[in-house]
Amino acid sequence: MVFNFQVVRKDASSDARLGILTTSHAQIPTPAFMPVGTRGVVKTVSPEEVWGLGFRMILANAYHLYLRPGHELVERHGGLHRYMNWPGAILTDSGGFQVFSLAGLRKVTEEGVEFQSHIDGSSHLFTPEKSVEVQEAIGSDIIMCLDDVKGYPVERDLALEAAQRTTRWAQRCLAAKKKVDPAIFGIVQGSVFCDLRKQSAEGLICLELDGYAIGGLSVGEPREFMVEMIEATVPLIPERYPRYVMGVGKPRDILDGVLRGVDLFDCVLPTRNARNGMLFTSLGPLNIKNARYRDDPRPVDPCCTCPLCRNYSRSYLRHLFLEKEIYCHRLSTIHNLCFYYRMMEDIRKAIEESRLNNFCAQFLAGMEETYD
Amino acid sequence: MVFNFQVVRKDASSDARLGILTTSHAQIPTPAFMPVGTRGVVKTVSPEEVWGLGFRMILANAYHLYLRPGHELVERHGGLHRYMNWPGAILTDSGGFQVFSLAGLRKVTEEGVEFQSHIDGSSHLFTPEKSVEVQEAIGSDIIMCLDDVKGYPVERDLALEAAQRTTRWAQRCLAAKKKVDPAIFGIVQGSVFCDLRKQSAEGLICLELDGYAIGGLSVGEPREFMVEMIEATVPLIPERYPRYVMGVGKPRDILDGVLRGVDLFDCVLPTRNARNGMLFTSLGPLNIKNARYRDDPRPVDPCCTCPLCRNYSRSYLRHLFLEKEIYCHRLSTIHNLCFYYRMMEDIRKAIEESRLNNFCAQFLAGMEETYD
Repeated sequence: MVFNFQVVRKDASSDARLGILTTSHAQIPTPAFMPVGTRGVVKTVSPEEVWGLGFRMILANAYHLYLRPGHELVERHGGLHRYMNWPGAILTDSGGFQVFSLAGLRKVTEEGVEFQSHIDGSSHLFTPEKSVEVQEAIGSDIIMCLDDVKGYPVERDLALEAAQRTTRWAQRCLAAKKKVDPAIFGIVQGSVFCDLRKQSAEGLICLELDGYAIGGLSVGEPREFMVEMIEATVPLIPERYPRYVMGVGKPRDILDGVLRGVDLFDCVLPTRNARNGMLFTSLGPLNIKNARYRDDPRPVDPCCTCPLCRNYSRSYLRHLFLEKEIYCHRLSTIHNLCFYYRMMEDIRKAIEESRLNNFCAQFLAGMEETYD
Repeated sequence: MVFNFQVVRKDASSDARLGILTTSHAQIPTPAFMPVGTRGVVKTVSPEEVWGLGFRMILANAYHLYLRPGHELVERHGGLHRYMNWPGAILTDSGGFQVFSLAGLRKVTEEGVEFQSHIDGSSHLFTPEKSVEVQEAIGSDIIMCLDDVKGYPVERDLALEAAQRTTRWAQRCLAAKKKVDPAIFGIVQGSVFCDLRKQSAEGLICLELDGYAIGGLSVGEPREFMVEMIEATVPLIPERYPRYVMGVGKPRDILDGVLRGVDLFDCVLPTRNARNGMLFTSLGPLNIKNARYRDDPRPVDPCCTCPLCRNYSRSYLRHLFLEKEIYCHRLSTIHNLCFYYRMMEDIRKAIEESRLNNFCAQFLAGMEETYD
């Protein structure tokens, strides 16, 4: 099936929209959240569990899979879908962000980015062409263009250079793409400078890629900047394209993005926090390590119908956590992913019924504490 | 339902027998293997998975649950079955073995055993009465009498003293038992001395407990002694009683026990080895860490129908293992437990068809390497 994105409805009171994103593996109703499966597994859970919660697209990482087990190995084994037994869609990050955040000594030139593996220090060169080759070998449904990621804060001229390079690299990615099936998304850069974001978006949109991401966020900038950059960038991306904010985020950030017209999100938060004992609930965060749950017979979230909340008490989950029983991580991960899936489902329903602003207010007011 | 054990068939060529063990939670066809769920969870897997493999009885530990989260807490939460969401039967070890193997400074007197917690060094006294109280609070289907466990080697007079004390303690356990439903099993001691084993068995059988275990094995003695002690002890336990060899064992040990008339087994081997990357297969052990599996597209065991072997390659499992992805432990645990369940099922079928000796020879011959 050819990649396709259709906006099926727009919210009356905000820029939010309902859409259907179609890839060769799945149809994904948007706005959607993608669980992170960096190394070819959504940490601690089975593909059946991820699918059973309702998710139809996950994110995997070109950088990690290139280093281990190797993209060529994955290709020999029939691609990542088959290797990890995931029937849904896969979007792969290009490696740009991971090289920025994980790799040792790195050197960005026009050709690409040279870096040392965070595993064994070996030297590698990721060019736009290489990144596309790796992602095609993995068998992604959606390939991300290699981007030049800078941290926060960054000087304006460095941010300009990185954004312009990202656009030139996107051109090379597009030219290097051999497979027909996968879609290819560009990544808007420009740090916290509105005019650079504009320049970056315009340059990328000329390339007529299949979708556009807003990158370089969640790198340490204050929350207001993130919202401001989303607000500045989304209107520049024509309505017919799916819009994706990478690495975001907290429930409130997702609501902020959706209200401004964003369709796709991914974040390690629900899965990583689960392993640290932090559960998302309708009343706000619950830290299962807390001594007050020692003898608490209630489910983690009385409003939740996930296996954890149906079958186990807070007391039992805390017992597992303290005993370092890894079954605890699985139950908590399923719970947090269930929370995220339900939130996205509720968001879609609210857009359908043109009451998203109300929904957002109620959602946030229901929480005793926020997740910030 | 009242506890009951019935021998339904005897093998023509050995002392093996088929039985049905009934507790208030389950009917268990014997010979049976019990997965170990020390702290109220079979490590890394869900109760649904354990049940789905066919298991109807697991083992939990009075010592561990007494220390954390506390037997009274478990009782307040409706007992262990409900706390951990396990619908099948639970047998609890009395704590005798754990005090011997884990606790710090310990002092055995006629009253009981004083020990220091391996968690925080706090002092505790386990008497026969206390052990029964803890196990009743947990809600066990089968309570084990507190035993005085010695290591190997041990001097004869010390072994004699411990065996005699174990019998006196069993008497006190029986007197302390308040609940009607749970069964109570005695534990034959006597180290590697046949005459002491005989004395111990005779003393315990006079008490007319509900079943008998052969304890004090797998404490470092050579394998021949283990088989010899089973051979010496089983005939002393009347046929109407279920016989249980604690902490055993490897596939070959289980076959040896079954051939000599043993009905129940438990061991951490399938679950612990899974977490270390060792998989049981019909051709012998497979260590998934081995570099030769890096690119191997075959399932771990082509003869196995578990979720691991149905859905994943050796290459993928090795990738998960090297990346320390804990989903690997779950898949491996399910596989190893599946191997054990199928082995017990095949054993029962072979007894049914009076061809157990043949089965054992074939089973062991089929393996390229043994598990010793």
